[in-house]
Parts: sequence; structure tokens; C-alpha cells
Amino acid sequence: MRPSGRAPDQMREVRFEPGFTRHAEGSCLVSFGDTRVLVTASVEDKVPPFLRGKGQGWVTAEYGMLPRATHTRGNREAAKGKQSGRTQEIQRLIGRSLRAVVDLKKLGERQVVVDCDVIQADGGTRTASISGAWVALRIAIDKLLETGALTEDPIRTQVAAVSCGIYEGTPVVDLDYIEDSSAHSDGNFVLTGDGAIVEAQLTAEGATFDEEGLLRLLRLARVGCDEIFRGQLKAAGK
Amino acid sequence: MRPSGRAPDQMREVRFEPGFTRHAEGSCLVSFGDTRVLVTASVEDKVPPFLRGKGQGWVTAEYGMLPRATHTRGNREAAKGKQSGRTQEIQRLIGRSLRAVVDLKKLGERQVVVDCDVIQADGGTRTASISGAWVALRIAIDKLLETGALTEDPIRTQVAAVSCGIYEGTPVVDLDYIEDSSAHSDGNFVLTGDGAIVEAQLTAEGATFDEEGLLRLLRLARVGCDEIFRGQLKAAGK
Amino acid sequence: MRPSGRAPDQMREVRFEPGFTRHAEGSCLVSFGDTRVLVTASVEDKVPPFLRGKGQGWVTAEYGMLPRATHTRGNREAAKGKQSGRTQEIQRLIGRSLRAVVDLKKLGERQVVVDCDVIQADGGTRTASISGAWVALRIAIDKLLETGALTEDPIRTQVAAVSCGIYEGTPVVDLDYIEDSSAHSDGNFVLTGDGAIVEAQLTAEGATFDEEGLLRLLRLARVGCDEIFRGQLKAAGK
Amino acid sequence: MRPSGRAPDQMREVRFEPGFTRHAEGSCLVSFGDTRVLVTASVEDKVPPFLRGKGQGWVTAEYGMLPRATHTRGNREAAKGKQSGRTQEIQRLIGRSLRAVVDLKKLGERQVVVDCDVIQADGGTRTASISGAWVALRIAIDKLLETGALTEDPIRTQVAAVSCGIYEGTPVVDLDYIEDSSAHSDGNFVLTGDGAIVEAQLTAEGATFDEEGLLRLLRLARVGCDEIFRGQLKAAGK
Amino acid sequence: MRPSGRAPDQMREVRFEPGFTRHAEGSCLVSFGDTRVLVTASVEDKVPPFLRGKGQGWVTAEYGMLPRATHTRGNREAAKGKQSGRTQEIQRLIGRSLRAVVDLKKLGERQVVVDCDVIQADGGTRTASISGAWVALRIAIDKLLETGALTEDPIRTQVAAVSCGIYEGTPVVDLDYIEDSSAHSDGNFVLTGDGAIVEAQLTAEGATFDEEGLLRLLRLARVGCDEIFRGQLKAAGK
Amino acid sequence: MRPSGRAPDQMREVRFEPGFTRHAEGSCLVSFGDTRVLVTASVEDKVPPFLRGKGQGWVTAEYGMLPRATHTRGNREAAKGKQSGRTQEIQRLIGRSLRAVVDLKKLGERQVVVDCDVIQADGGTRTASISGAWVALRIAIDKLLETGALTEDPIRTQVAAVSCGIYEGTPVVDLDYIEDSSAHSDGNFVLTGDGAIVEAQLTAEGATFDEEGLLRLLRLARVGCDEIFRGQLKAAGK
Repeated sequence: MRPSGRAPDQMREVRFEPGFTRHAEGSCLVSFGDTRVLVTASVEDKVPPFLRGKGQGWVTAEYGMLPRATHTRGNREAAKGKQSGRTQEIQRLIGRSLRAVVDLKKLGERQVVVDCDVIQADGGTRTASISGAWVALRIAIDKLLETGALTEDPIRTQVAAVSCGIYEGTPVVDLDYIEDSSAHSDGNFVLTGDGAIVEAQLTAEGATFDEEGLLRLLRLARVGCDEIFRGQLKAAGK
Repeated sequence: MRPSGRAPDQMREVRFEPGFTRHAEGSCLVSFGDTRVLVTASVEDKVPPFLRGKGQGWVTAEYGMLPRATHTRGNREAAKGKQSGRTQEIQRLIGRSLRAVVDLKKLGERQVVVDCDVIQADGGTRTASISGAWVALRIAIDKLLETGALTEDPIRTQVAAVSCGIYEGTPVVDLDYIEDSSAHSDGNFVLTGDGAIVEAQLTAEGATFDEEGLLRLLRLARVGCDEIFRGQLKAAGK
Repeated sequence: MRPSGRAPDQMREVRFEPGFTRHAEGSCLVSFGDTRVLVTASVEDKVPPFLRGKGQGWVTAEYGMLPRATHTRGNREAAKGKQSGRTQEIQRLIGRSLRAVVDLKKLGERQVVVDCDVIQADGGTRTASISGAWVALRIAIDKLLETGALTEDPIRTQVAAVSCGIYEGTPVVDLDYIEDSSAHSDGNFVLTGDGAIVEAQLTAEGATFDEEGLLRLLRLARVGCDEIFRGQLKAAGK
Repeated sequence: MRPSGRAPDQMREVRFEPGFTRHAEGSCLVSFGDTRVLVTASVEDKVPPFLRGKGQGWVTAEYGMLPRATHTRGNREAAKGKQSGRTQEIQRLIGRSLRAVVDLKKLGERQVVVDCDVIQADGGTRTASISGAWVALRIAIDKLLETGALTEDPIRTQVAAVSCGIYEGTPVVDLDYIEDSSAHSDGNFVLTGDGAIVEAQLTAEGATFDEEGLLRLLRLARVGCDEIFRGQLKAAGK
Repeated sequence: MRPSGRAPDQMREVRFEPGFTRHAEGSCLVSFGDTRVLVTASVEDKVPPFLRGKGQGWVTAEYGMLPRATHTRGNREAAKGKQSGRTQEIQRLIGRSLRAVVDLKKLGERQVVVDCDVIQADGGTRTASISGAWVALRIAIDKLLETGALTEDPIRTQVAAVSCGIYEGTPVVDLDYIEDSSAHSDGNFVLTGDGAIVEAQLTAEGATFDEEGLLRLLRLARVGCDEIFRGQLKAAGK
Repeated sequence: MRPSGRAPDQMREVRFEPGFTRHAEGSCLVSFGDTRVLVTASVEDKVPPFLRGKGQGWVTAEYGMLPRATHTRGNREAAKGKQSGRTQEIQRLIGRSLRAVVDLKKLGERQVVVDCDVIQADGGTRTASISGAWVALRIAIDKLLETGALTEDPIRTQVAAVSCGIYEGTPVVDLDYIEDSSAHSDGNFVLTGDGAIVEAQLTAEGATFDEEGLLRLLRLARVGCDEIFRGQLKAAGK
């Protein structure tokens, strides 16, 4: 039995509030239950140095957590003077996930920086970030298409992410903080709207798992992502 | 005429949403028009090293701005590896303002860390932060009083802040971003619920002003703070 | 009664030693009693990036304190790897104060960097810095006028600063370290040679004050600055 | 056809040179073809702060790359003043992989720090690091068992890692630099000596893959790790 | 012919102004011609961690240069966030030089931190620093002897330093900035009051030298240090 | 009697393994007994900013020590976020030593970066680094001569370094860790193939020495360097 009373393949309530802030070209407050992440997509008319003059664009991401997003207050990374390894790992993952569904050539020589800031954390902040990031990116790109800055849509398909793990012997989807703390085997799957796997990260600290376990988690991830995909489309007004 | 059509002594809509996040002992989303700051108050059972064993507590503040809170995206301070001088100046101001209305002896050997994170900026982020910080602090202290951790209320009175400046020759209160960008003389006043001045900071880059101007701005600040004080009380359920 | 035996409106001995070092275009050792600050003004034929090609100049300031300028040795900021919030706050204040009396257009595309390094501290290091900075700047600009690099004087008027505070119930000017440590209400005023207020910063940690108090401090500041103005002119050979 | 002429399921030559340096409790120079990593295991009689007094030990890892390990010289991380996100991601992975096969309670209150320094890079530096790290750890633990500092072996089983990816349409094992640069789908598998999966990380930047692809890569990983396991045992003198 | 008109074995004017600042236990403004360094010696009742409980003291030094001590303004190390390699090399040299003449056991469990801050630079800042540091240390130790905190003098003898080099083919002592810039072979000698060599650092970038050259420079160093020793004694009131 | 049983003027076994890694233009694993340093020379077609457009090249060096090169593990400088003063002092010394034997004009507008990474330390890491650096540089330059990128050899002569010190009253050459730890007077000499002194650094912490001592150490250094010179030539295939 899950602490929240959810069925093993049941997601927490997934909500997207598009346009949560006004300055960004695209923005979205995404909630997976009590996990809430504010995502903004900022379009910049420049590309990173390694892409200058190559006729293509870039999509990158940054991730942060407000100090009291968590049960006990964490130190502010800006005050400590550096981002943790965990933060960097997550922002690299978000960036790769988005680039997997964007045609960077069609984007032209511009960069979209996606900022994911966790307002409140209850497990799954990276999967909520990826899922919300697609909505913010979609809105920002739609603006470029409306104004004619872009004539072809560079977004090939949707991308979403969800966590899965073995909680007290049962494979479950979308772990909340309590489940995440006690599960020894868990993973994050990033899937595309057309059914492909973009990223799969499985970790078994202490415990381990086998092919069968891996496939069972992946099946749960497909169920979870399908629900997220529907929410994304609705939020993006499609 | 103000760009927003407001009267010179008219505040933007001031709103406090107490309990915006659930982990912090006190929290509040404060809005001064389009300026929105998420404030959390975290109670910790320890004091900074310089106060250990002195039988008193401490209240301190940290301030941050989400990268895309502003019109164009700013660099993330955690990624740059240091907080700007502006950030440090503001968080020192917030901390001093709160301590001016708290009896640190009555607080006992504990620390309250107030985090002010700007979700959206449109001028006046430091004054909104101070005003919202009092609400978050009030809620957190009320919890300590309810549980009996504190028996006497360490908060002496309210504290609020507002900006004032000379916009196109006219003294106005609560400047928004457009006004702030063109005003050469402006200041921030921090006032207490019993009418005293805690902080006054006036700057005239390019222009200058005299005693008369200073007093006129202060009078506007009193009007503005009175409105904030009423909102704070309501938000704190008093 | 003040610990130093001074009258409430009596400054400490104010001295300016122009040309204290030889490499800088302008330099000055300023003393407010035992507070001694070495100020240099360096003229550079470049402007900060945000001003390039805009046909105007810039004046900026940096501030530092030698580790043993104080009663007990402080850590060297270069060794700690970062400047404190206090340091950054002060150097921003010095820069704004100087720019308030300089016509940046007339300065042309050059930058003057003013370094204020505290040799010995006994209260009022920031006000002594601002007051001495004007002398160093004046000397540096005079050289540019003499060599014909400048044909019009970009300095509109003098600028000076002094602290004021309530010491044991009495408003006093130019607080020394002992007074500063026990005064709960104090402030710094930056005034121009033609009588205008450039900056006013008042802080009441613990205590508070009202309009009447604010004006009384401002009146003391005028008296103090008048004495400083006379010293500046003499030091600059005017 | 692979650039090296290898069969799809053929590893590069895997070599372990135990005892490559003399000060460390355990050391090993591991080579996967031209990729060479110097691994040392240092035993320290203390644990990190979060484990003090908990009656258990810790195993952690650090990773670095000599500036000219690569085709073109990279900047030295010590000179840049920070470790890249990639470095941190890798060292976290190595640490988790080792801890998955170590009984931390049996280790007692001591820490083993494993340093993996890449002498020469040709793809697969993280998998070579993990594989060599087990050998260095094994040697260090054997010393503790010999001296009686430990009476029970805390290492439960072996751990090894190998990369797999789709190179020009064909699933291949142990990618070298040329293959790694052009493969869009690839992953790293960390497996234990008793056949379980500890970590699986798959990334498809640009391309994507499905369940079938995932399982095919995993099968290759098992073949590769079996060869590594044999080499590890021989190197550790088992 | 030397640019300054000095004879090859002629020092610049060497001056020591003891007690230049009042807070430090010992202080001294040392001048070697236009090179001027403010030295303070701070006595602290604690030792660095590696010496705790060992019944001995420590003497260490820090070195800094005011940004405009030089012909063109250098960046402030505190603003850059790190000390240069040159700075660290010099402060390590000063510390070693002082420790060579101090009996750390007799100093007891206390630390003397000597700060050398260059007010104006014209070549030889490190040798002036060492020479002035001895005076500041002497004054600080004398105070400890006077108050009875120390009963035995821990300073065994004097220590002084001077630079020597080959300028246009001629060995000269105490190089000023012009000589230093064009001399390819030069060195710094640290000598004790009883005639021993504590440190000798010779560098020949581009050029080189032989035993004969080395000894000739050392002979010049002896002449120069003798003059410095006399000045030190007088400044310390011996 | 030396702990190793060596005669006072006897070097440890000196070995050079050229071509130890394959990516660098020049590389060499140098051993002075148990001290082992991996040196690579990287040729870059750019010069540092201060040399741009001046028609000459540059040779610079970086130095590092693997965390467990030493008896007890040291902290990784990349993880600490800064290089120690010792590291910077050594890499500056290596760079100067190499530049003393290179005609930078003949090198053309290119830079050679020499990385010296200590694999195992047993005293004398800086002297081994310099000695091995010449071999790596020689190999790299030879490649430029072979390909015709250079037509004239910019290397004027060899350069090598060795430590000397007074161990239990006897002057000895090439101190190992045990000798180095107890010797109070020691130094490093950098000599050229044509007999000149490039650098001499002597330190006497606690003890001191005189001219006679200095010359005796220098004589030992000549003996040691002659042996190194022979090894370098053989390693470079001359």
C-alpha cells in the first residue's frame, strides 16, 4: 500500500498553469502533487560560443531549488558560491531531454534558456521540471511562429518524464518524497510523444534489479507519461 | 501623470497570500502589483556563532531573484558563483528591518531565516520583500506561541516598507519599473506599526533634493505603509 | 557628554594630504581624527562594457580595509576570496556619490576608478572615503584639464559626507568608533557643495526615530559638511 | 564495421596493473584499450559528518582528467577553480556503484576514498574508472583483513561497468572515442558479479530507442562485464 | 650608470617609521626610496590548527598591494576573488624569513600575523616588506615582554632582505623599478643579523649567471643589509 | 649516512620514459627514484593576450599532484576550488626555467603548455618536473621541426634541476622525502646544459648557512645535473 493511498500505476495530480509569470516568452507552473516547479523559457538572439556561425540554435536549462522548498531549509547555492553536483546533473538532463525533440537547425541562430525553479519539493522535481519545460518551450516557440520569427516548427514531438521505483517490493510510478526516501531501486524515464525513450536512468543503491524489473518500470513510465502528454497539450492550447 | 494612471499617493494593489508553500513555518506570496515575492520564514534551533550561549535569538534574511523575474533574463547567481553587491545590500536591509521590531531576547536561542525570492519583478522588490517578510515571520512566531515553544510574543509591532520618488517632477509612492527607471531621486522607507522610522535610504543619482523634498517623500511613505499594515494584519489573521 | 569631549556639532580634526602617493593621477590621505583613508583616482582610457560607444565616461569606486586597520585583526578579503556585503555596499555608495556631481558626458570616453583603502579605522570610514575621494578626483581631473585632454570641467560641484547619530539621547555629528558602537540610530548624509542632498541613509536597529529626529541629524550634517568642503578646497589648491 | 575492426560484442583489451603506485592502500592502473585510468583507494579512519557515530563506514569517489589526457588540451579544473558538471556526475556515479556492493556496516567507522585520474582518454573513462576502482578497493580491503583491522569482508560481490551504444545502426559494446562521438544513442551499465543491474544510464540525443534496443544493449553489457570480472579477479589475486 | 645616479653598492634611502598606525601591537611604514610598505604585526592568542597543543607559537605573513601602488592600476585581489601566485609566493617568503630568527617555543601558544601592504611600489617590495616586518615584530614582542606576557625574548637576531642584480653588465644592489624591468638576472637575499643566509633566490630569465656572479651579488647583499640592520635597530629604539 | 644508503653526491635512479601518453605533442614519465611525474607538452597555435601580435611565442607550465601521490591523501585542488600557494610557486618556477633556454622569437606565435602531474611523490617533485619538462618540450619541438612548422630550433640548450641540502650536517644531492623532512637547509638549483645557473633557491628554516655552504651545494647540483643531462639526451633520442 502506498502512503498516499494511490494505486501502483497512479500518478499524483498533474497540473500545468501556463503563463504563470509575464516577462518570459513562455512560462508554466507545473505541479506533480505537492511538487511545484516554476518553469520559464527565455528566447535569446545569440548562441553559445561553440555554435557561433553554424546556422543552428541551442536549448539549454538551469535548475534551482528555493532554500525552503524542502522539509528543512537547505543552503542557498548562490550564497555557498557553487551549484551542487546534483543541481548540475539535473540541469544537464533537462537540457538533453528538450534537445532530443527539437530540430536545432530549424530553431535558427537563437538560444532558448529554460529555468526550472522548485518552489516546493515532494519528490520528482526533475521529472516535473522536464514535463513543465516542454510546455514553457512550446509556448515560447508558438510566439516565434506567430510573429513570423520562425516559419517552421522546430519542435518535433512532446517530451515528458516520470520516476518509477520499487516501493516495498511493488513497482510504482511517480514516487513522492516518502516513497523516494525508502525505495532503493528507482529511476527516471524521459519519453517522447511518439513512444521513444530519450533517457533512462536507473539506480539501485544497496539493492539491485534485473531485466524484468527494468521493463516493468518502463511500462509504468509509459502509463505515467501518457497522462502527462495529455496535460501538456491542454496547457499549450493544442 | 503616472504611466499606470495611479494618483501620486496611490499604491499598486497590495496582496498577501499566506501559506503559499507548506514546508516553511511561515510563508507568504506578496504582490505589489506585478512585483511578486515568495517569502518563507524558517525557524532553526540554533543561532549564528557570534550569539552562542548569549541567551538570545536572531532574525536574518536572504534575497534572490529568479533569472527570468525581469524583462530580460539575468544570470543565475548560483551559476556565477557569487551574490551581487545589490543582492547583499538588500538582504542586509531586510534583516535589519525585521530585527528592529523583534525582541531577540524573547525569541530565545533560535534563529529565523527569512528567504525572499522574487518570482516577478516590476519595481519595489525590496519593499515588497520586507512587507511580506513580516507576515511570514508573524505566522511562524504564532506557531511557536501556539505550541508553547514561546510564551511571550517577541514581535513588538509591524514593519513595512515602500518606495517613494520624484517622477517627472511629482513626488509619487510605490514606483513601478517604468517610474523607477526614469526617476533620478528615489528612496525606500521602512516604518513601524507605531509610526517610527526604522530605515530611510534616499539616493539622487544625477539629481538631488532638499529637506522639503525628503519630508514630502516621507509623508507619502506613511500613507503607503498604512495600507500595507492593514493588509498584513488581515493576512496574518489578526 | 561625548567620550572625546567634543561638542555635539563638532567634527573631529579633518585633514587632507593631497599627493600622498605618486603614481595615481590624483591621490589624497584623508583623516577624520584617527580614521585614515588613502584615496587614489586612476584615469583609464576605456569605459565599462555597458557604456562603450555611448560618448560618455564613468566614475566608479572600490573600497577596502587593511586587515589591521581595526582594533582586532580582520580577515583579508583577498585571502577569503570575496568581498563582504558591507564592502560592496560602501563602494557602491562612494561611486554613486561621486557620479552625482560629475557630468559624465563632459568626462568623455574615459573611466576614473577611485580606490579608498582604510589604513586606520575609528568610525566613519565611508564618509571619510567619500570626502577624500572628491579631492583625489579633483586633482586627477585638474591634470586632464591642464594637459588639454579635457577642455571643460566635468565636476559640477563638491561632494562630502558625514555621519550623524543619536548618542545617549543627543544628536551628534561625525561619530567615532566608541559612539558608533553604542548608538542605535545613526545615518550617513552625502551633501553637495550647493546644498543639495545626494544620499541619506538612516538606520535604527533596536531604536527608531521620527521626522523631527531626521531633520535634526540633517542639520548637523550640513554643519559638518561645510567644514569638510572648506578643507577639500584648500587641499585641491582652490 | 567498427573503426577499430572489432566485432560488435568485442571489448578493447582490458588490463589491470595492480599496485601501480605505492603510497595508497590499494591502487591499479586500468586500461580499456587506449583509455587509461590511475585508481587509488585511500583508507581513512574517519567518516563524513553525516555518518559520525552511526557505526558504519562510507565509500566515496573523486574523478579527474589530466589536462592533456584528451586530443586537445582541456583546462585544468584546479586552475579554473571548479569541477565541471560532467566531473561531478561521474564521481557520484562511481561512488554509488561501489557502495552498491559494499556492506557499509561491516566496513566500520572508516572511509575509503577512491581517486580515479584519467591519464589518457579514448572513450569510456567512467566505465574503466568503475571497473578499476573495484580492484583498488579490493586490494585495500584485503590489507585491512590481513592486518585484522577488519574481520569480516564488507565486499559482497564484484562491480564493473561498460558502455554500449548504437554505432551506425549496430549495437556495439565498449565504444572508443570515434564511436562515442558519432553514436547518438548510448549508455553505461553498471553490473554486479552476481548478475544484477546497479545503474543503467541511457541517453539518446537526437535519436531515440525502444525497449528492444534497451535490452539488446543490456545483453552486450553482460558480455562485456563478464570479461571485466575475470580480469578483476586475476588482478586482485583471487 | 644607474638611472638614479646611485653607485652600484648604494642603497636607496631606507626609512622606518615605527608606530605608523595605532591599533596593531607593532607597526611600521618602511620605505626603500619610493617603495613604501605599511607593516603591522598582530598578536593573537591562538595558533593554527596544526600546532594546537604543541606548546609553541607561530609567525605568519600576508602581503598585498593597493591597486594603484603601481604605475598603472592593477586589479584588486579581493574583487578578483583570489590572490595571485606572486602574492602567495611573497607572503610565504616573508613568513619563512621571520620564522628563521624566532624561537617558536619561546613565543608560547600564540600567533603573530604580519601584514605587509604596499602603499607605493618602485621595485623591491618584498625585500622592504621583510625588512620592515622585523621592526613591527620587534615592537610587538617588546610589548609582550614589557607586560610580562613573555619573559624570554623569542627573537634570536635581526633579519633583513635586499635585492641584487646585473644591470647593464654591472652588479648592483637594491634595484628600483626601472632597473628591475631591464635586469635579466636578479635575486633576493635574506640575511640575519649574525651574518647567515636565510634565503637566496636567484632568477635569470633569458640570461644566466655563474658561481662568481652569485657570490658577487651576495657580497652586495651583505653591504645593503648592514645598512638596513642599523636602521631597524634605531627604529626599534635599541 | 643517508637513509637510502646513497653516497652524498649520488642521485637516485633517474629515468625518462618518452612518449608515455599518445595525444600530447611531447610526453615523458620522469622518475627520480620513487618520485614519478607525468609531463606532457601541448603546442597551441595561440599566445596569451599580452603577447598577441608581437611575433613571438610563449612557454608556460602547470603543476598538479594526484591526491594520493603522497603518504596520506591530500585534498584535490579542483574540489577545493583553488590551487595552493605551493602549487603556483612551483609552476611559475618550471615556466621560468624552460623559458630560460628557449628563444621565444624563433618559436613563432605559438604557445607550449607543459603539464607536470605528480603520480607519486617522494621528495624533489619540482626538480623532476623541470628535468622531465625539457624532454617533453624537446620531443614536441622536434615534431614541429620535422613537419616544417619550425625551420630553426628555438631550444638553445638543455635545462635540468636538482635539490641539494644539508642532511645531518652533510651536504647531499637529490633529497628524498625522509631527508627533505628533516633537512632545515635545502635548495633547488636549475642549471643549463652549458653550465650556467638559471635559478637558485635556498631556504634555511630554523638553520642558516653561509657562502661556503652555498657553493658546496651548488657543486653537488652540478654533479647531479650532469647525470640528468645525459638521461635527457638519451630519452630525446639525441
